[in-house]
Amino acid sequence: MAPLEFGTGIWAFGQFVDRYAGDGYGPPRDSREMIEAAGRVSGLSCLDINVPFATEGATAAEIKQLLDDNGLTCRATTPHIYMREYAKGAFTNPSQELRRRTQDRVEEAVEAAQILGAGYVKFWPGQDGYDYPGQVDYLQIWDRTVDGMREICQRHPDVQFAIEYKPKEPRIRMTLANAPKTLLAIEETGVDNLGIVMDFGHSLMAGESPTESLRMIHRRGKLTSAELNDNWRDWDDDLPVASVHLFETMEYILALRDIGWSDPVLLDQFPFREDPVAAVARSIETIRMLDEACARVDRAQYAAAQDAQDALAVQAIYWNALLGTERFAVGH
Amino acid sequence: MAPLEFGTGIWAFGQFVDRYAGDGYGPPRDSREMIEAAGRVSGLSCLDINVPFATEGATAAEIKQLLDDNGLTCRATTPHIYMREYAKGAFTNPSQELRRRTQDRVEEAVEAAQILGAGYVKFWPGQDGYDYPGQVDYLQIWDRTVDGMREICQRHPDVQFAIEYKPKEPRIRMTLANAPKTLLAIEETGVDNLGIVMDFGHSLMAGESPTESLRMIHRRGKLTSAELNDNWRDWDDDLPVASVHLFETMEYILALRDIGWSDPVLLDQFPFREDPVAAVARSIETIRMLDEACARVDRAQYAAAQDAQDALAVQAIYWNALLGTERFAVGH
Amino acid sequence: MAPLEFGTGIWAFGQFVDRYAGDGYGPPRDSREMIEAAGRVSGLSCLDINVPFATEGATAAEIKQLLDDNGLTCRATTPHIYMREYAKGAFTNPSQELRRRTQDRVEEAVEAAQILGAGYVKFWPGQDGYDYPGQVDYLQIWDRTVDGMREICQRHPDVQFAIEYKPKEPRIRMTLANAPKTLLAIEETGVDNLGIVMDFGHSLMAGESPTESLRMIHRRGKLTSAELNDNWRDWDDDLPVASVHLFETMEYILALRDIGWSDPVLLDQFPFREDPVAAVARSIETIRMLDEACARVDRAQYAAAQDAQDALAVQAIYWNALLGTERFAVGH
Amino acid sequence: MAPLEFGTGIWAFGQFVDRYAGDGYGPPRDSREMIEAAGRVSGLSCLDINVPFATEGATAAEIKQLLDDNGLTCRATTPHIYMREYAKGAFTNPSQELRRRTQDRVEEAVEAAQILGAGYVKFWPGQDGYDYPGQVDYLQIWDRTVDGMREICQRHPDVQFAIEYKPKEPRIRMTLANAPKTLLAIEETGVDNLGIVMDFGHSLMAGESPTESLRMIHRRGKLTSAELNDNWRDWDDDLPVASVHLFETMEYILALRDIGWSDPVLLDQFPFREDPVAAVARSIETIRMLDEACARVDRAQYAAAQDAQDALAVQAIYWNALLGTERFAVGH
Repeated sequence: MAPLEFGTGIWAFGQFVDRYAGDGYGPPRDSREMIEAAGRVSGLSCLDINVPFATEGATAAEIKQLLDDNGLTCRATTPHIYMREYAKGAFTNPSQELRRRTQDRVEEAVEAAQILGAGYVKFWPGQDGYDYPGQVDYLQIWDRTVDGMREICQRHPDVQFAIEYKPKEPRIRMTLANAPKTLLAIEETGVDNLGIVMDFGHSLMAGESPTESLRMIHRRGKLTSAELNDNWRDWDDDLPVASVHLFETMEYILALRDIGWSDPVLLDQFPFREDPVAAVARSIETIRMLDEACARVDRAQYAAAQDAQDALAVQAIYWNALLGTERFAVGH
Repeated sequence: MAPLEFGTGIWAFGQFVDRYAGDGYGPPRDSREMIEAAGRVSGLSCLDINVPFATEGATAAEIKQLLDDNGLTCRATTPHIYMREYAKGAFTNPSQELRRRTQDRVEEAVEAAQILGAGYVKFWPGQDGYDYPGQVDYLQIWDRTVDGMREICQRHPDVQFAIEYKPKEPRIRMTLANAPKTLLAIEETGVDNLGIVMDFGHSLMAGESPTESLRMIHRRGKLTSAELNDNWRDWDDDLPVASVHLFETMEYILALRDIGWSDPVLLDQFPFREDPVAAVARSIETIRMLDEACARVDRAQYAAAQDAQDALAVQAIYWNALLGTERFAVGH
Repeated sequence: MAPLEFGTGIWAFGQFVDRYAGDGYGPPRDSREMIEAAGRVSGLSCLDINVPFATEGATAAEIKQLLDDNGLTCRATTPHIYMREYAKGAFTNPSQELRRRTQDRVEEAVEAAQILGAGYVKFWPGQDGYDYPGQVDYLQIWDRTVDGMREICQRHPDVQFAIEYKPKEPRIRMTLANAPKTLLAIEETGVDNLGIVMDFGHSLMAGESPTESLRMIHRRGKLTSAELNDNWRDWDDDLPVASVHLFETMEYILALRDIGWSDPVLLDQFPFREDPVAAVARSIETIRMLDEACARVDRAQYAAAQDAQDALAVQAIYWNALLGTERFAVGH
Repeated sequence: MAPLEFGTGIWAFGQFVDRYAGDGYGPPRDSREMIEAAGRVSGLSCLDINVPFATEGATAAEIKQLLDDNGLTCRATTPHIYMREYAKGAFTNPSQELRRRTQDRVEEAVEAAQILGAGYVKFWPGQDGYDYPGQVDYLQIWDRTVDGMREICQRHPDVQFAIEYKPKEPRIRMTLANAPKTLLAIEETGVDNLGIVMDFGHSLMAGESPTESLRMIHRRGKLTSAELNDNWRDWDDDLPVASVHLFETMEYILALRDIGWSDPVLLDQFPFREDPVAAVARSIETIRMLDEACARVDRAQYAAAQDAQDALAVQAIYWNALLGTERFAVGH
């Protein structure tokens, strides 16, 4: 297997706010500063970049130059369809005018993607959903989601698009909440240039097994991107990889190896209280260490343990691979 | 709209055990006692009945007679494919022999359904899933689930089957965990006699909006049965209807009206510490009260509020309908 | 019982941001605009006000004038000890300098409270906690929490202080996470001018029964303030009262009546996507409606039902009180 | 530090039932079979034993002989105060007669403890709580809990008692739900022979940091026993140690070392679908491996990282200790 390649969202290097620290975590940063910070992360090769860009008025060509200067490429562009005006939804906004503007904003991201050489344009419809029981007509919201995405995908048959699903935040409940629901939506669009950005942390939040979702999405030919990070299951904490969940991360890396994943692994992190360069670098180091461990797994033994649903054997295999020993007996 | 009809699982009138009170909640009850108790619930007309029957050796004809004697019908049969021998799965058991026995056990339920005049045979694959990260090959489990159900459905093209999905318990994580995943599985079977038993409480546990799932399943033509009850969201508590969630229950009843639901509404309750006759009767009383409230809803006003995502207007509509007043202003 | 009085946090009328819509929900608002908006809420009489004030450079006397002009009083002041510089904690910050600044900032809020005639100064240590397994020495964090609060309370023996506990956000895990932990911390301070702001929604998030916590805190003489709102249990959604939970809200109001609560009930809401004046007014209308229902409860009957743990009787009492009928039989 | 000693609940070797597989997971086992199975677990030295014993009519002397024969001791006895008759509570049952019987049943466990040489008698009041909003008078339940435990502890001033807290199951919500609440209850009893059995998994379920709770309980002198296992956070899955959470387990073991824990570590497991001897043995192996890793931690470095809340440094320390390398840079 070729060495893993790594990317991250450019936002990892920006200033964060939340509803309490409205004055921000860390210093404000423009596009240049964010890209330069990304360039300092050992092993990082590409970025998912929000459009419009952080530096007001910056052109895609200028961003391209900054990337080149810092030895980076653009993996994806993500249109800002979850800012103030989209508070009641982007594709699903009650206002036709705002649904129109959603299309326009995605257009900007498509154009940027072409100039930047991005592999895909990401839909992250974080405001598309509801906050209260009874607030929306679910089928209307669903249809607008499907129709809005289909329209864009059909307009750009040569561009790859991808949905990043998540169960909640910022909307209290998001429509494209989990992997199978997103697969159903994609199926309804009827287009073949719309896939999924499968984020490990969002999947944990959704109560899924991230590895199961990865495998299901991949088998259906919809795995556009795979993202790693970690959380405490109840929120999208966007922590460094394996901060909480070891075996689930190893299981996921084993699955990436199984499917022969050769595109970058993206790291979706929000290092509110850490140095972002160190926090992203740590994830890369951790994945590499775990990937080396996974390379040591005897796959026939692993398959046999899974065939028998022998959880203790599976754990023995994980521990032995991690520690590089035969300390734990696989059979018992 | 015709008056709602009600059914429940026969287990509501049986003795429950759990891993602590292994000596059981309430007295043990045979099939006759359970059916007689059901017969005492005012407004209850039908049952979902486990096969094999509670009384060892009882025949379907005997059960049919008991139902007749108590003014009840059989709405569904549910094969016991989650007892001791299926601890590692029914359709997905590692042992081919047990996968075979699963088929046989479903056959018994099909036969019983025909004698009892049941509307459908329910699959409740509560042991099909996993307990640990890494324990299973998810695609293998998935394929066995799909293949096993397809095989049965194809063998009985004139029988309606239906899956009751749930995210966990007894298996720590169940494969058919939520509505969209179950829709995908059904799609993969390629049969048209397999639908869904949509349980309100399981949907809450899965982090869904039960009403959204009801609507999605219905629109895809897969709504075989609708079940109401309530819980605290984090477990399948199987409490009487609206014990915790008012608006979500009203929203659900409004949706049942919208789709013109005329089959029975089933009440999946486990009254561990209540008199089961009273607990089921209470749900029926509550649903009737809420259904009367829902009949008072001005549907144009409701649609307009949802179109605008105007949550405060929706709530005003709910409160006014419930209280039979105009106390809450819908516009503001 | 005297009619209920109502207050809210001034922030309900401000502009919100989150990590996605960094450009804010709703228009920016200065102190004057926020207070004027509060003044337009029918039935609202007082505010919990952040210090420093939203309008940079505004004096407490100016704020007092604005309150007077709008028929409002100040119920509490809340120092901003959870902004950027406190990202790693206020009372518990690793830096002694920042722990010092926390004290200073609380001093500002004490001074403002005195000028504004506030009933208490609120500690909301939302950054005091941790984000990762292993990140902190829990006893060190605990001691700094206790010591920091004790120091302030001892310096101002005539001022009432109160802690608003919450399990998480903005810190991924907060130290003062629930009612009993906060009671233990208060006990350790050894001061008698430190109580609790008991927030219904935070209590739901903490997995508590809000009414149980209210009763426990009150019995220990530490109930400084009671706040109502609602959420989906898994996050501090700060929705209007009873948006999700009916019986739990009724139970809470019954408890407020039992303890003879005569201070204002505060409404902690973040109406991200609603008109804040309407959203707060709706909570007041709802509480009044529910309070009228609670006045109809036969307390002897209620006590008897609880003594017997007769949940169906309790529910009958709630429904009958709400609907003003005898539709549901209390005995069965 | 002396080598760790290990115990487990005798129930780990019994037959489990749940509400679905009422016919049980695994074969039924009497006291002799359970103790013999325990004797086959390498490294296991003691048991927590339910009273009445699994073998009907067995005497404590007979159980003692079985323990001796299998090289085991009795660490604790746990009275069955959560079986059928206690469905509405043990200490808090509405019936005075049942509250009386609770006392009697605890007496049996005290007598057995004396004959068996147990270190403590455990209270596990799993039915003391409620299932519905409004069902109970919380202060009444609280007082009965405190009074009932005080009465027993005062009657046996020379016996050590200990409460195992847990947020739910079998009761939907348990009164002694978390560490601080249990500390408050103990404080109210006013006795000094009542401590806490601190169970890692129950603490995770309660949303606590298990290590923080361990430290808090220990500092207050109430740590009677420490139990390890693991779960998925949302239920008491009672899985082998570190099946899901690595760093939190390491953090806990480091804390056990800090406080100089020399009593046995108990393993509270329910191996529904695994061989119990192998499942318990695996936990012992895993703890030993992690304990060796913890012995490699440079404690000054660890303390410095925690003082600075430097999560990345803490993680580097954990990984390096686990892998026995210096691969991860502690400073950055």
